[in-house]
Amino acid sequence: MSFDKFNDECGVFGIFGNANAAAHTALGLHALQHRGQEAAGVVSCDHGQFFAHRALGLVGDNFNSADVISRLKGTAAIGHNRYSTAGGTMLRNVQPFFADLSLGGFSLAHNGNLTNALTLRKELINRGALFHSTSDTEVIVHLVALSPGVTIEDRIIDALKQVEGAYSLVMLTPHALIGVRDPLGVRPLVLGKVADAKGKEAYVLASESCALDIIGGSYVRDIDHGEMVVINENGVTSLHPFPTPMRRFCIFEYVYFARPDSMVEHKNVYAVRKRIGAELARENGVKADLVVPVPDSGVPAAIGYAEQSKIPFELGIIRNHYVGRTFIEPSDTVRNLGVKLKHNANTAVLSGKRVILVDDSIVRGTTSKKIVTMVREAGAKEVHMRIASPPTTHSCYYGVDTPERSQLLAANHSVAEMAKLIGVDSLAFLSIDGLYRAVGEAKRNNDIPQYCDACFSGEYPIALTDKDSGIGGKQSDLFAEMA
Amino acid sequence: MSFDKFNDECGVFGIFGNANAAAHTALGLHALQHRGQEAAGVVSCDHGQFFAHRALGLVGDNFNSADVISRLKGTAAIGHNRYSTAGGTMLRNVQPFFADLSLGGFSLAHNGNLTNALTLRKELINRGALFHSTSDTEVIVHLVALSPGVTIEDRIIDALKQVEGAYSLVMLTPHALIGVRDPLGVRPLVLGKVADAKGKEAYVLASESCALDIIGGSYVRDIDHGEMVVINENGVTSLHPFPTPMRRFCIFEYVYFARPDSMVEHKNVYAVRKRIGAELARENGVKADLVVPVPDSGVPAAIGYAEQSKIPFELGIIRNHYVGRTFIEPSDTVRNLGVKLKHNANTAVLSGKRVILVDDSIVRGTTSKKIVTMVREAGAKEVHMRIASPPTTHSCYYGVDTPERSQLLAANHSVAEMAKLIGVDSLAFLSIDGLYRAVGEAKRNNDIPQYCDACFSGEYPIALTDKDSGIGGKQSDLFAEMA
Amino acid sequence: MSFDKFNDECGVFGIFGNANAAAHTALGLHALQHRGQEAAGVVSCDHGQFFAHRALGLVGDNFNSADVISRLKGTAAIGHNRYSTAGGTMLRNVQPFFADLSLGGFSLAHNGNLTNALTLRKELINRGALFHSTSDTEVIVHLVALSPGVTIEDRIIDALKQVEGAYSLVMLTPHALIGVRDPLGVRPLVLGKVADAKGKEAYVLASESCALDIIGGSYVRDIDHGEMVVINENGVTSLHPFPTPMRRFCIFEYVYFARPDSMVEHKNVYAVRKRIGAELARENGVKADLVVPVPDSGVPAAIGYAEQSKIPFELGIIRNHYVGRTFIEPSDTVRNLGVKLKHNANTAVLSGKRVILVDDSIVRGTTSKKIVTMVREAGAKEVHMRIASPPTTHSCYYGVDTPERSQLLAANHSVAEMAKLIGVDSLAFLSIDGLYRAVGEAKRNNDIPQYCDACFSGEYPIALTDKDSGIGGKQSDLFAEMA
Amino acid sequence: MSFDKFNDECGVFGIFGNANAAAHTALGLHALQHRGQEAAGVVSCDHGQFFAHRALGLVGDNFNSADVISRLKGTAAIGHNRYSTAGGTMLRNVQPFFADLSLGGFSLAHNGNLTNALTLRKELINRGALFHSTSDTEVIVHLVALSPGVTIEDRIIDALKQVEGAYSLVMLTPHALIGVRDPLGVRPLVLGKVADAKGKEAYVLASESCALDIIGGSYVRDIDHGEMVVINENGVTSLHPFPTPMRRFCIFEYVYFARPDSMVEHKNVYAVRKRIGAELARENGVKADLVVPVPDSGVPAAIGYAEQSKIPFELGIIRNHYVGRTFIEPSDTVRNLGVKLKHNANTAVLSGKRVILVDDSIVRGTTSKKIVTMVREAGAKEVHMRIASPPTTHSCYYGVDTPERSQLLAANHSVAEMAKLIGVDSLAFLSIDGLYRAVGEAKRNNDIPQYCDACFSGEYPIALTDKDSGIGGKQSDLFAEMA
Repeated sequence: MSFDKFNDECGVFGIFGNANAAAHTALGLHALQHRGQEAAGVVSCDHGQFFAHRALGLVGDNFNSADVISRLKGTAAIGHNRYSTAGGTMLRNVQPFFADLSLGGFSLAHNGNLTNALTLRKELINRGALFHSTSDTEVIVHLVALSPGVTIEDRIIDALKQVEGAYSLVMLTPHALIGVRDPLGVRPLVLGKVADAKGKEAYVLASESCALDIIGGSYVRDIDHGEMVVINENGVTSLHPFPTPMRRFCIFEYVYFARPDSMVEHKNVYAVRKRIGAELARENGVKADLVVPVPDSGVPAAIGYAEQSKIPFELGIIRNHYVGRTFIEPSDTVRNLGVKLKHNANTAVLSGKRVILVDDSIVRGTTSKKIVTMVREAGAKEVHMRIASPPTTHSCYYGVDTPERSQLLAANHSVAEMAKLIGVDSLAFLSIDGLYRAVGEAKRNNDIPQYCDACFSGEYPIALTDKDSGIGGKQSDLFAEMA
Repeated sequence: MSFDKFNDECGVFGIFGNANAAAHTALGLHALQHRGQEAAGVVSCDHGQFFAHRALGLVGDNFNSADVISRLKGTAAIGHNRYSTAGGTMLRNVQPFFADLSLGGFSLAHNGNLTNALTLRKELINRGALFHSTSDTEVIVHLVALSPGVTIEDRIIDALKQVEGAYSLVMLTPHALIGVRDPLGVRPLVLGKVADAKGKEAYVLASESCALDIIGGSYVRDIDHGEMVVINENGVTSLHPFPTPMRRFCIFEYVYFARPDSMVEHKNVYAVRKRIGAELARENGVKADLVVPVPDSGVPAAIGYAEQSKIPFELGIIRNHYVGRTFIEPSDTVRNLGVKLKHNANTAVLSGKRVILVDDSIVRGTTSKKIVTMVREAGAKEVHMRIASPPTTHSCYYGVDTPERSQLLAANHSVAEMAKLIGVDSLAFLSIDGLYRAVGEAKRNNDIPQYCDACFSGEYPIALTDKDSGIGGKQSDLFAEMA
Repeated sequence: MSFDKFNDECGVFGIFGNANAAAHTALGLHALQHRGQEAAGVVSCDHGQFFAHRALGLVGDNFNSADVISRLKGTAAIGHNRYSTAGGTMLRNVQPFFADLSLGGFSLAHNGNLTNALTLRKELINRGALFHSTSDTEVIVHLVALSPGVTIEDRIIDALKQVEGAYSLVMLTPHALIGVRDPLGVRPLVLGKVADAKGKEAYVLASESCALDIIGGSYVRDIDHGEMVVINENGVTSLHPFPTPMRRFCIFEYVYFARPDSMVEHKNVYAVRKRIGAELARENGVKADLVVPVPDSGVPAAIGYAEQSKIPFELGIIRNHYVGRTFIEPSDTVRNLGVKLKHNANTAVLSGKRVILVDDSIVRGTTSKKIVTMVREAGAKEVHMRIASPPTTHSCYYGVDTPERSQLLAANHSVAEMAKLIGVDSLAFLSIDGLYRAVGEAKRNNDIPQYCDACFSGEYPIALTDKDSGIGGKQSDLFAEMA
Repeated sequence: MSFDKFNDECGVFGIFGNANAAAHTALGLHALQHRGQEAAGVVSCDHGQFFAHRALGLVGDNFNSADVISRLKGTAAIGHNRYSTAGGTMLRNVQPFFADLSLGGFSLAHNGNLTNALTLRKELINRGALFHSTSDTEVIVHLVALSPGVTIEDRIIDALKQVEGAYSLVMLTPHALIGVRDPLGVRPLVLGKVADAKGKEAYVLASESCALDIIGGSYVRDIDHGEMVVINENGVTSLHPFPTPMRRFCIFEYVYFARPDSMVEHKNVYAVRKRIGAELARENGVKADLVVPVPDSGVPAAIGYAEQSKIPFELGIIRNHYVGRTFIEPSDTVRNLGVKLKHNANTAVLSGKRVILVDDSIVRGTTSKKIVTMVREAGAKEVHMRIASPPTTHSCYYGVDTPERSQLLAANHSVAEMAKLIGVDSLAFLSIDGLYRAVGEAKRNNDIPQYCDACFSGEYPIALTDKDSGIGGKQSDLFAEMA
């Protein structure tokens, strides 16, 4: 079990007051599938009884049968998509989690990552708590269960005051759907509503607005940082139980995570990405014949780059969307097979041309190198790579699966070195201020940045308690069972 | 979720100090498969790290690959077979259970049933404990986790002093294999040993001695009622932490549960069953041409009956061992299909004969009636049914899956009525004293019976706390999640 | 692909004129499961349209859903069980076979083995026929398709006149169910009937009468050797198109293959086996304390032996019916693991006793040796093995999966040598005349034996054309595709 | 079994003389996955022995294990992708087909459709041939088997002279890989080569050049219409055994089927599609704010349209590539759910805008209507649909799965009616001459068109023998067995 396991980027969804709660939740999770493909789960509630279905694999493979949906009874439900990380996976880690509390059933789904989960887990185990998963999220459930609070809302607030990290949570109780964002609002969470056939409206919570679109719902507003909303028969009640000195939404959601058709924090992701491309062209122009995106994530920035630079946009690399990650390599003569299973150079387009390749980011750099090789073998005369974000020099501890620093190319090499390693004629990244301009700021406020950009800046807005205490290293104490 | 779910008859196995601990455990569980076919699990321990594999289905289908066994590392392991009850099943109920405690990993497997589990569960939930299964066994794990005891042994003793019911437990800690039988010793548990290729001996715990035979091991002794054995690098330490006023082993283990080749409580099961058959013949002789067992469970008693009565033993009913429980019935003309999938009358043997049918017990009576019909249709002139136990008039609450009293034929009808309902020319049961004679007693001690015979007598030697408090009825409070 | 693949012992079933034809066929195949466990198939016919379902595995696992049965429409159906041979298996070899002929659909299921199938296959391929399986049976379908006969019956007769070997066939055409036995009647085939809820009777064909019992049907008669029956709306028409100089039913069906509750060729199998046991006792008596069967196949003969010898019959070996063929061996210390997965010595019964072990036959002798070792380790003072058949010295080419002669223990060793190898105090086989007496003959007619006993005598009543021409060796010509 | 079943658009691949033949074939099929997703198969040949693996589902799910690939031994292999048509599917229809012929093993994979297959099938059945599949392709195998030709090449030529229709075939014999295109060259087939690690070159056949790219191979040339190439140890031999009056490549391959990065018939598909978009803009310009493709197939034409019209290209519709075809609809309030599972309007882009939607074609029109509704609900002020092909007024009988004419929107409505039904402000199709210009012709030669454009023109260049004789209607004669 590697430490990577706690770094999950996930999607959450919740609905209250609709006769087809589970079916809507399944659809919402399908729309949020890009946020996690490893596993999915739905928990519904019907008059105090809870029903659950969790499965490894895609929503569309596990939640599309009348049999499954009809067993998820009730007019309220929450759901969760889990990210596909390397290595084995355990069904007992698949959310939403559920517990019988003295106040009744309680279910919870979490997008984000807690930075003091291991510390809390150790304390809880010492108090006699039994952990059933290896997930950071389970500590919240224990803290709620052990809280002396009279109401479930009190207990949740009590519990969340003890945790550190990033979290957008949806929770289900016998009488309410509850949503919370951490005090900095690192991960997204939107409020929407959807009407049924008779016009009765139900409230919805979702990681991104695209999950509202698929069910024919409408966007109401973003949940505020540090806000808790309680949705029940009386409508939506908003609480602000946590101190919220500042808002630090993850700027990487705009760069890569969110779907281009989503509104997150009032901004259309596609439009931001096009502006990123335009900024990139302004900052790092180069003479060339074509602007070619690395599909699919580089496409909006490439369109923006092409518009700004007046250089034609072309599909010089074609993406094969059929799954094929693990083919047997015939021999060492099929170079860059891993890349070719998903991408192919469009030789007729690239041959003899000066090409600007636009990609969203560089992590380890291994794929970039293969793509550049492929583009050159297709006959490109020059290859200029433009990256739609600053160099990623630091790992994320707030819910994103990133390698350790030692494996981040930009953490260990200059841009010139990177260009040489990747094999391009030129390489340029968007500046940090360019990125802030693309999201609508004049520039980064270097005193208190408007966003969380720790992966670019190394400035972590939330304490890294577990990491700093080194508790992660003593795993055998905490996780004696291997699946 | 019916109350039946808490009534499991299971098999347990444990081994300490053998390089092939998991492979031996899988074999032991295979030998104990008759005690539970719904699911099986093995947990092993290697230098403080625990490894687990649990699966629905037979041991032979899930624990026979090198892949599975090699992942179960370490020189100590425990395993569990779960009984196949009606209705759905959840993987999270499959034992052995595991927990990270402050003292390290802890795993437990249980044969039996606790009679105050729901009461304890409610109290524990009120204290903030999170339950992950619907099993009675999980309360023991919580009680151990919450115990203030300094050593794991102290904590286990502390926990078990709070529970009521029947239990034979095998437990695994980073440094020991621990076995316990409840103060009355209702369920069996034997100690054995097995040598490896170099002659090094390892200790083994198992529900029945047949699990020692399969691994080439030898029987040492039965664990005593109320005894706790701690097996570690220093050998076997025996503790007697519980008051043990009397021994009340389940007499039905001899009638039906245990394998005929097993030694339980110093007695060979096959030999007891033959003596039961002989007692039955003595008590309830009848003129007939053949003694025919209802296979397979009625065979040893029928052999005993035939020897005693000098009436020939014949295989008048043939058993089809291939699985086929749920065939589609062609029409109402295939009478007694459910019985015919497993049994067929051997017409040439039965035709024109006066037949003594020997079966181990009658529960609802539905199968008996179908078998008698089948035997008559095969031409039997007379059918005399002899039952190798007294009438089962009461439900078991100590780990056996039995219907409620309202469904027990003998609880609601006289023997004469039963004979008529089943359609036999005569029907007779073994007397309770006859049964005690077969197991080696002069007669039942009616003051303090030597065995637990509650299913025949209604005298329950352990308090039925949950049942008496009616807590089982308020399930929605305790089990809000339905699988 | 080994030559063993062509040696299948199978079960067949057919029914005509019943609204639940497929459901009855599935039940019939379940009753015949002992004749083949590798795969099963059912083909039904509804107004000229045929429906098929074939699957690897047990009938009870593949033909027990309403979904499968309801898709097998029509009032006529045939079915087939295939034997589990070593090595890989191909779905396209699973019978019944089906073909679109110019006269309409045609389906066929075969128990037996053709001895000139490879010769015919080569000729047919040279004529341009395309084979879709590696089964001997497919040549019959081709010969029927290519026959110039005007009616399907003519074509079947024409085809069968070209084949050599053993065959009991059930065939389905748009208008009839057809059954045939080869001229010597080597494999069994019985005619029965079953009434529906309204009393309308349908005819049934089955390998053994136990398949009639399970559907509540009744036995009418055995199909005669060389007889062909055509069952259609007009009832049963009997044809005798083949020369039938003699009847040579497989005597080993009585020894081992058939179910004890079946009637084959007018004789109850259980009764024959008991008489075999009695003959064995008469021929090879020995002083002993117990008669112990090797379960399950040795049980009836052991009962007969015990009755004749007045030595008590005891279950000294217990059989575990749960499947577990391929467990991982923990180490070399578990001796005879392969045997122990299925059998266990009942030590309390055997210890200190002189034991007569009764088994049906000895093939390679490897299992016998392990069982004897196990019995001795359980404390038996003497072990005398008695075999309920003569020594098997020759391979079968008529539909039974047997090893080559080089691997048959009795083909290469004297009885004294075998006794030493197996480790018994004495070993004796039933004499060939004793076997004939048990089946009701005064003795074997050595000029023209009344049965096929080639496996004991080496006298093959049907030419072994393929074997003698050595065509089996040139497999690459005939079977270029490996699955 | 609907007639649609014979209309398959498939992909084929073959390789000769490479030690990793099967692994290369699996990769080639993965690159051709867009031509068929229902099933895939690979047959390899090693010294005259053939090995096969066929499976329902994607190549990446069934041919990516070392286990599967290592069993497909040999240095030559062929493979096939099968199109996903509605309704059930039978494994026995999955290609490549295989047969043992008198000359040795023979395997074949087919892209296209025969128009006299049923007629030939009936004749062959009357001659005694046994068909194993319901595929049109099997008649070729029978004709080869029955041919009197001395060599396999003679037999193939003899067989193909009897069939009518469209076919690109790859075939494997013990000594050669053989490729053929029908006399009109309706379906594509290219020749390429690939070097192994030591530089040894092997020849490859594939439906499209993208299958050469993935294995690091290079394009040599297109197989000519009516050409047969025999690839063996001596290299490539080209034969032209068929009269080839004209070349009539399927023009719809450029519109939709082929991958944009493929070269087919010397033209880059992406470039043709961009020219189609430009022609469309020239022919059917309209004032608007945005050009928005219906992704993914409409993207290249939309880029071409935007470049020509100087109207900005925008991703106004976002595609969800995760599979989710059959979700349970929550209620009637989720309008257009089927479309929303795959597409979502990017509201921020579309709102208040005049939108030109570019799609490749309109078949039934049902999806178009839903997409237009979705775009309008996102706030588009005007919606102008432009279709990158002429109206599809006729069904294809040459290997493409198309609905019957009665279901083709353009076959039954004027463009004005279609615009109204779909709900657009304007609708325009590319002219037939515009399409020919885009593929490089001055205009369509109306006497003998340069391409097969039957789906647009109703001019079928190959006789529709089965259809005209009505033989398809008498299916019960030809296909008595339903899977």
